[in-house]
Amino acid sequence: MSLDLSGIWAPLVTPFTADEEVDLEALAFNVELYGQTPLRGYVALGTTGEFVHLSDDERGRVIETVVRAARGDHRPVMAGVGGHATRVAVEQARRAADAGAQALLVWPPFYYKAQMDAEALVDYFTAVADASPVPVILYHIPQNTGVALSPAVVGELAAHPRIAGIKDSSGQPSQTIAFLREGGPGFAVFVGSTTALLAGLAAGAAGGILATANVAPYECCEVYEHGRAGRWTEAAEVYRRVAAVDELLSRLGLGAMKAALEMLGYRGGYPRRPLVRPDEAELDRLRLLLREQRLLGC
Amino acid sequence: MSLDLSGIWAPLVTPFTADEEVDLEALAFNVELYGQTPLRGYVALGTTGEFVHLSDDERGRVIETVVRAARGDHRPVMAGVGGHATRVAVEQARRAADAGAQALLVWPPFYYKAQMDAEALVDYFTAVADASPVPVILYHIPQNTGVALSPAVVGELAAHPRIAGIKDSSGQPSQTIAFLREGGPGFAVFVGSTTALLAGLAAGAAGGILATANVAPYECCEVYEHGRAGRWTEAAEVYRRVAAVDELLSRLGLGAMKAALEMLGYRGGYPRRPLVRPDEAELDRLRLLLREQRLLGC
Amino acid sequence: MSLDLSGIWAPLVTPFTADEEVDLEALAFNVELYGQTPLRGYVALGTTGEFVHLSDDERGRVIETVVRAARGDHRPVMAGVGGHATRVAVEQARRAADAGAQALLVWPPFYYKAQMDAEALVDYFTAVADASPVPVILYHIPQNTGVALSPAVVGELAAHPRIAGIKDSSGQPSQTIAFLREGGPGFAVFVGSTTALLAGLAAGAAGGILATANVAPYECCEVYEHGRAGRWTEAAEVYRRVAAVDELLSRLGLGAMKAALEMLGYRGGYPRRPLVRPDEAELDRLRLLLREQRLLGC
Amino acid sequence: MSLDLSGIWAPLVTPFTADEEVDLEALAFNVELYGQTPLRGYVALGTTGEFVHLSDDERGRVIETVVRAARGDHRPVMAGVGGHATRVAVEQARRAADAGAQALLVWPPFYYKAQMDAEALVDYFTAVADASPVPVILYHIPQNTGVALSPAVVGELAAHPRIAGIKDSSGQPSQTIAFLREGGPGFAVFVGSTTALLAGLAAGAAGGILATANVAPYECCEVYEHGRAGRWTEAAEVYRRVAAVDELLSRLGLGAMKAALEMLGYRGGYPRRPLVRPDEAELDRLRLLLREQRLLGC
Repeated sequence: MSLDLSGIWAPLVTPFTADEEVDLEALAFNVELYGQTPLRGYVALGTTGEFVHLSDDERGRVIETVVRAARGDHRPVMAGVGGHATRVAVEQARRAADAGAQALLVWPPFYYKAQMDAEALVDYFTAVADASPVPVILYHIPQNTGVALSPAVVGELAAHPRIAGIKDSSGQPSQTIAFLREGGPGFAVFVGSTTALLAGLAAGAAGGILATANVAPYECCEVYEHGRAGRWTEAAEVYRRVAAVDELLSRLGLGAMKAALEMLGYRGGYPRRPLVRPDEAELDRLRLLLREQRLLGC
Repeated sequence: MSLDLSGIWAPLVTPFTADEEVDLEALAFNVELYGQTPLRGYVALGTTGEFVHLSDDERGRVIETVVRAARGDHRPVMAGVGGHATRVAVEQARRAADAGAQALLVWPPFYYKAQMDAEALVDYFTAVADASPVPVILYHIPQNTGVALSPAVVGELAAHPRIAGIKDSSGQPSQTIAFLREGGPGFAVFVGSTTALLAGLAAGAAGGILATANVAPYECCEVYEHGRAGRWTEAAEVYRRVAAVDELLSRLGLGAMKAALEMLGYRGGYPRRPLVRPDEAELDRLRLLLREQRLLGC
Repeated sequence: MSLDLSGIWAPLVTPFTADEEVDLEALAFNVELYGQTPLRGYVALGTTGEFVHLSDDERGRVIETVVRAARGDHRPVMAGVGGHATRVAVEQARRAADAGAQALLVWPPFYYKAQMDAEALVDYFTAVADASPVPVILYHIPQNTGVALSPAVVGELAAHPRIAGIKDSSGQPSQTIAFLREGGPGFAVFVGSTTALLAGLAAGAAGGILATANVAPYECCEVYEHGRAGRWTEAAEVYRRVAAVDELLSRLGLGAMKAALEMLGYRGGYPRRPLVRPDEAELDRLRLLLREQRLLGC
Repeated sequence: MSLDLSGIWAPLVTPFTADEEVDLEALAFNVELYGQTPLRGYVALGTTGEFVHLSDDERGRVIETVVRAARGDHRPVMAGVGGHATRVAVEQARRAADAGAQALLVWPPFYYKAQMDAEALVDYFTAVADASPVPVILYHIPQNTGVALSPAVVGELAAHPRIAGIKDSSGQPSQTIAFLREGGPGFAVFVGSTTALLAGLAAGAAGGILATANVAPYECCEVYEHGRAGRWTEAAEVYRRVAAVDELLSRLGLGAMKAALEMLGYRGGYPRRPLVRPDEAELDRLRLLLREQRLLGC
């Protein structure tokens, strides 16, 4: 694989208009702005991108829009795919690759939780990877799915020629360390939570796929670049700022992330209901924090 | 509403062929057999029906097939609907009603769990009920969704003219009792777990929507009818048998339910992967239990 | 064992004075009143008895007080014991038996949760049973301990000559059914939650150890006696009343249980902090329910 | 308070002999060895010290032994205290201070989980702090207690003149960041998990109370000292080694920690049952890792 699975990737928000239609123009606008940043790549249709809120048709158009907008900058696009049935995930994987995705971020099934034992999970991810023409990244986000990928399952899957890494969104450095150990050399572990970024990079993670990279792309990349170059002092200084922002944004939810983007000159738009924008008091708190951490108005 | 929301309803399995295609013929065959039983109605596309494994198109055909097959017997069909985005659930609700469903069983969104507070849930279910031309039944199944409907939220939603009841699949009679109290008179609480059936009926539940009614329709209805008539002695005797079957089936998963149907002369077919049929040792255990409880070979 | 492990047992509250001292006189008074009821036996130092709030010395005096007060009526006394270390539980078991307990209700250790695998649990309960001169009842209450006893572990432990049964406080009839199956004939499964009583008895439970039997001893016994005699109709009618009371008391907590006892002429006293009595609005709600269910003022 | 609440503290294991008696001599021996390290202080009777496995009498002797052994090096001793009843925790706090503890690490009650709302937790910790003659550190370890301290509760408690900080053992840097923000300046947040150490220090934590500091005291202190001096590059290098060790030790449990101490020339002794030493295969894995990370045989 010639794809460079490292560095900081932004899992892009999918902006919606006030009447909840996908706003592809706003999406392309953001990617264009990000073209000036050192972001390594983009993820379309991750958790931040409201994958679960979109139709297949909308998903295709989102991927195509991001791929087209990113082409000028030669940045790769990873697409979120998944399904409760293996065949749905396989179909999603093919469509996403057809739409131009150069890698896939793959959810586990998460409805029949009690049945999602090691055997079922290995069977599912293997089938998706077998069908995928592009590298597959496993997606570990137990707080949303209620399904945990054990280090042992990840170690087994890492042997598949097309399973190239994992995004660990648990927020727990101990998980990242376990995945690094079980995945072995060449298995790309992406930190999936900005608060866990410094620890993950120090432990050997390949990079980060970070919601907060939407609002602080330069800063997230600085943490990575400083760490990569062994300048952990500088890395830690910037980390402190983005982690504080991430902690608040995570608690307030996706509507807050979109509002923050608007404050910063990007086009965040609205989330789809039942997600909502936070109220004014919360927005003020957010503005204050963005200012304190020198992301806004400086 | 003239729809009779009481009695025992079977949440039908969706049979798949060995290559995982929907087998509408097998589905219609089962409904025809059930036409000889005292089942009050059918649920298409519940948890047992693998709602999450089907495309919109397949969902439409499943509902239509069940509606057509049930027409001869004048039994109502409830359809499972839901979405992570409100608008998706609203659209699903419209389609299901168009396809002939006479009531809807509505899931909460369950991906952005941390955001699913009372406000978001009330907003979501209200929007679906506003859009639905037919009665809505709330679906409480926290072991699969990771999202619990609190008694307070259910009480608030019960005031909506088109929210007619709830299916409580928690397996905990204490929940059923709380929903009965908060829902008030006229709010139909369906027991969603056979092991909790006797307790639920005694506490005042309107009926049951029971996976095990697929394999033991007569027996499940007997528990209900005896209870309804105040013959709890007879109810308890039959309950003991179906509850034992349900406990095993729940633990083995949906593949076992489908295998049991095949043993009993119905057409269960296969589940969609990553769900699988249990191995032979487990099937033998299942056969033995069905025999012991006099569902098989008597 | 000549001890009759069946019927309804009350897990007695331990009344405290306003300054939180154990009120042995109040405790003895309650047992005397219960002597007029058909309760089969008493549990000292269960969850309702605030086992975890008492010193070893206080535990000894509570057991002795209950044993002495119960002697006149020839009712057996079971005592709650447990420890995070096996040797502590063993020591507690010996002391409780020395103080006169005729059976023991044994908690699993619940601090080092991640280490409490099947091997550790079997080792622990076996050691306690080996050391106990009296029959041992396993205590399954995962909502408080965060440690679940699997049916397989219970099945293995049931083979021990001194492990005579289990108290299932999960509130889920499916658990009771699984314990009955794995425990086999002669293994006494006690329902530990009044809302699950009817289902548990119908499924074959030996009896109930029910917090709500403190406030509704006659009614809880009626459910049992009717069920035992096959009069499930009458059983269901009374069940409905006590289950409604139990649902509210469980939600309000132990302070409410003690307040309810005071309302009913028993001596509940205070809980130990940080547990507190509910506020007046909640007490009014409780009074109303007790009246509605004809436990108060009729 | 003149007590320096920063730096790396070791939560000492409590060594037991093969027949499970407290081995005070072994404990004193370890403290003597630690006297040569840059450890800032010791915690007696934390989770690693098997607080829950000891009698009050043993607790007193453990504290006294550590205080005496630490006196020569002028290092402070913090003692773990707690209780399910407030009065028990208050009594424990007094005893620990009498035995010489210069600070207290205080558990929340964790049996009546459903009642442990903000009010109950604030009431409990306030009562303990009111009674304590020495500074109090809150103990957040939800994976063992099942009770989480919310940032809001921590913020409220931080205003108490004797509540000086918190140990965050969640392993999630996002929690540490939230506690830092809510606690405000002067509130000492200790990282309680080595895998979260680097992130926590970078975010502003005062230090660490780290189980792995028992086996790698020099290395844990190096991470801290490098970080403190802004040498994050060196900090990250050492962090990588101790975090890998911590990840394995956490998974294997306390018996493994004690075995590792023996390998390294300390006196770990045995854990109390039902905790056990790991089997030989696991011990070999542990030896290999200690060697790889240059803690053993270099």
